[in-house]
Amino acid sequence: MSKKIQIDLNSDVGESFGAYKIGLDEEVIPHLTSANIGCGFHGGDPSVMRKTISLAKQHGVEVGAHPGFPDLIGFGRRNMDATLEEIQDYVVYQTGALQAFAISQGLRLQHMKAHGALYNMAVANPKIWETMAEAISVLDKEIILVVLASSNNQSLLDIGKRYGIRIAFEAFPDRAYNKNGSLVSRREKGAVIHGHEQVAQRALKMALEGKVIAMDGTEIELRPDTLCVHGDNPAAVQMVKKIREELKRAGVNVIPMKQFV
Amino acid sequence: MSKKIQIDLNSDVGESFGAYKIGLDEEVIPHLTSANIGCGFHGGDPSVMRKTISLAKQHGVEVGAHPGFPDLIGFGRRNMDATLEEIQDYVVYQTGALQAFAISQGLRLQHMKAHGALYNMAVANPKIWETMAEAISVLDKEIILVVLASSNNQSLLDIGKRYGIRIAFEAFPDRAYNKNGSLVSRREKGAVIHGHEQVAQRALKMALEGKVIAMDGTEIELRPDTLCVHGDNPAAVQMVKKIREELKRAGVNVIPMKQFV
Amino acid sequence: MSKKIQIDLNSDVGESFGAYKIGLDEEVIPHLTSANIGCGFHGGDPSVMRKTISLAKQHGVEVGAHPGFPDLIGFGRRNMDATLEEIQDYVVYQTGALQAFAISQGLRLQHMKAHGALYNMAVANPKIWETMAEAISVLDKEIILVVLASSNNQSLLDIGKRYGIRIAFEAFPDRAYNKNGSLVSRREKGAVIHGHEQVAQRALKMALEGKVIAMDGTEIELRPDTLCVHGDNPAAVQMVKKIREELKRAGVNVIPMKQFV
Amino acid sequence: MSKKIQIDLNSDVGESFGAYKIGLDEEVIPHLTSANIGCGFHGGDPSVMRKTISLAKQHGVEVGAHPGFPDLIGFGRRNMDATLEEIQDYVVYQTGALQAFAISQGLRLQHMKAHGALYNMAVANPKIWETMAEAISVLDKEIILVVLASSNNQSLLDIGKRYGIRIAFEAFPDRAYNKNGSLVSRREKGAVIHGHEQVAQRALKMALEGKVIAMDGTEIELRPDTLCVHGDNPAAVQMVKKIREELKRAGVNVIPMKQFV
Repeated sequence: MSKKIQIDLNSDVGESFGAYKIGLDEEVIPHLTSANIGCGFHGGDPSVMRKTISLAKQHGVEVGAHPGFPDLIGFGRRNMDATLEEIQDYVVYQTGALQAFAISQGLRLQHMKAHGALYNMAVANPKIWETMAEAISVLDKEIILVVLASSNNQSLLDIGKRYGIRIAFEAFPDRAYNKNGSLVSRREKGAVIHGHEQVAQRALKMALEGKVIAMDGTEIELRPDTLCVHGDNPAAVQMVKKIREELKRAGVNVIPMKQFV
Repeated sequence: MSKKIQIDLNSDVGESFGAYKIGLDEEVIPHLTSANIGCGFHGGDPSVMRKTISLAKQHGVEVGAHPGFPDLIGFGRRNMDATLEEIQDYVVYQTGALQAFAISQGLRLQHMKAHGALYNMAVANPKIWETMAEAISVLDKEIILVVLASSNNQSLLDIGKRYGIRIAFEAFPDRAYNKNGSLVSRREKGAVIHGHEQVAQRALKMALEGKVIAMDGTEIELRPDTLCVHGDNPAAVQMVKKIREELKRAGVNVIPMKQFV
Repeated sequence: MSKKIQIDLNSDVGESFGAYKIGLDEEVIPHLTSANIGCGFHGGDPSVMRKTISLAKQHGVEVGAHPGFPDLIGFGRRNMDATLEEIQDYVVYQTGALQAFAISQGLRLQHMKAHGALYNMAVANPKIWETMAEAISVLDKEIILVVLASSNNQSLLDIGKRYGIRIAFEAFPDRAYNKNGSLVSRREKGAVIHGHEQVAQRALKMALEGKVIAMDGTEIELRPDTLCVHGDNPAAVQMVKKIREELKRAGVNVIPMKQFV
Repeated sequence: MSKKIQIDLNSDVGESFGAYKIGLDEEVIPHLTSANIGCGFHGGDPSVMRKTISLAKQHGVEVGAHPGFPDLIGFGRRNMDATLEEIQDYVVYQTGALQAFAISQGLRLQHMKAHGALYNMAVANPKIWETMAEAISVLDKEIILVVLASSNNQSLLDIGKRYGIRIAFEAFPDRAYNKNGSLVSRREKGAVIHGHEQVAQRALKMALEGKVIAMDGTEIELRPDTLCVHGDNPAAVQMVKKIREELKRAGVNVIPMKQFV
């Protein structure tokens, strides 16, 4: 499975807003291959977007849009009963805004990954993935849509094919999985794994074998293209460094998703 | 002066927001050659932007970005002490967002015209025109920057040249002018001219001779490329129709600015 | 049933925002006994709130808070997955803001009625009514909580008793009802009744008998204290006038809810 | 001058927003006598307001409203060309919203202090102080209006008298003063004083003598009632502790402003 000896590392960054700082962007970005940048609805503002693009460029990290619901007070983490049409409009708006900052610095968006509740709602309702795919197909077919890796990968690949765009599958080394390949809800105990060693081992298994051990011990296949990591605090940044080191040590090629999906 | 027998007609549209409707877009757009579309900061929202682009496309009207200050409650009409950098970021963000909706419908932005207080502040401080010109130059050099026509046109043309972009000069047929070529403040009596006949005659003189009679009777030269008209109410729409008819009757070629600036 | 020969007429007003006007407040307010005033989250802004309070005062109409979700772009009509604690905080914030405008004009809030999705979510989950009741109980026990009249009235009266506040039950003369006393969803055909005569007759039956004929022909008991009417357009205002006239003609005492609940 | 051996210590707190944390509220509040709490326009949100009121109550610290411009992205630090009427409406709205959270926890607002650009604009244009005084006079005459202490104190006391409210004068121990009693602009070098020892000595002189040494060496009279301190970072909190200790050591009674203005 030579495809799986290359992996992308992505993280949500650029979510500060005005005087408000969130995330250790300067520290985590150098360790990534792909940066998901807030676009102003759930977090991020025009100046933050420009600066984050600049920071990613400086470190040779690929940039992508990270659109969310227009819910700044809830940081885009609350489900909203928006229509598919509204969602598509929100995605086009935010992706276009970020694309402008990328272009103005000589870059082009590599990918798009929905944020928070919008991502979770898409996992529950693939019509939302589809409306995002459609948005990308008319905006810039080179933009890769990042979706949750699961046992359902094929149907999402089909959506990508239908709209002529590429799909990247994402896995979460620090999240527990149910045996059907879905993430264990954060409300349940053990949903988030904190040990650096354990998380690094899971990342390794995901990258090398495309698999994860679910909560009940079952080994399940995810075949992720990209692993999501975090830069919320110094410990998280340390974990990202460790994951990247372990991947390198194991001979995994840590490169931007656009080079292989 | 063959250049002046062609003129563009622009109007601010797409400023509705969610459940709130403002402006008679459907009625005024068919009479325009260029539509300035709100981008979500002072007015407009993602769905309104999509629909307004669609409406303009349907009538063969060119589309442009109409960015404003992030002041929805004040409809972008209040001066804000933002830095040049913040202003540039706001312009890039909003123009990019609208560009995405244009692209997704197979169009490309023709122009960019600042809204309300942002426009007025630029008139008072040309460094703001310059920061907009710079934004356009890195985003898409085909986008034309619309500025207020005045005795100061040359210095703004120089800015355009410096950044490699085109400048379009705008005049207001329904606004009184000071003899130095500036607009009479709306706080002064007589600042806005209401008679359809009188406004149409002024539009004609602007288009044919490039001139306007200032409040004190002085004839001043503006040499506008585009005339700003309004679609706020049925009477305004009627005025636009009359202006366009009079221009046609006088043999003026009413065409999008991109065809001649 | 002497209690039912008095009825209150309420309507949602004060939902304009900045340059955006919505609703014919000046025309509908004179016909109401209770005005539900937007508080700035889904609609309304500080200046609109002051002016609407003033308008209601001028016509001797009681004022109440009409808090909604922080979703201006969706006009508060989209369900949001907010916690009970967040909802209570939103209600306290908005009610306090409006209370300040009432106090500054020598008035005091009579009631509180949730808007749009917040109201609908409370109908589906009475814990939301309860969190509103708790908010009122610590803010000002004189404020009446307006809830949907249904076969479930007693359990809501119990909530009121528990928190030491009054509950007013609301019915909708222009909405179709299911036989269990719930409103027919707007997505279903026939959910909204448009004939003025028919709506007025339903209002009369609601006021005189406390009853409505459900969609399937069943007569159900609602025992409303207040009827919700609309001022969105001239026809709606005419309907309000007709309802009020018919109620008067039938000897119903149309007075503010605080006089009898 | 027995009046000056009592002083109040105030700080801006409760300016976090949703997922965004700003300021070390938990650490600085215990050292204050008066907390200026963000009201949701420039910072703060309903849940933050509730929690901050609760924190202040727990430490016996008086609470006050800290209203700002509706400019979250600029943290209320940018001048906005709002009318006096709009400003009054913004102040009433925000003060009312915070008052509701105070009432719901059995407290009552002690004071109101404008934030950022709104405060600075009022310093430059006393009509803004006056519109705030008027707002307070109709809302709750017990609320004290906090203004900048300067050589102009008497005219502001006159405003207070006219509206029947109390005025508290504020000084900034860590800010350099011009000899006319105004603050040295932050854009000038030396505008902010960083040495803990020096700031504490200035606080002491302000409290004991009502005076400060201006940048040019002139001793000027301010006669402040309250000193503004900061809780932005651990060093700032340490400075607050030091100021309070020095005041106590010198026999100054550090008590809430309402006990003596």
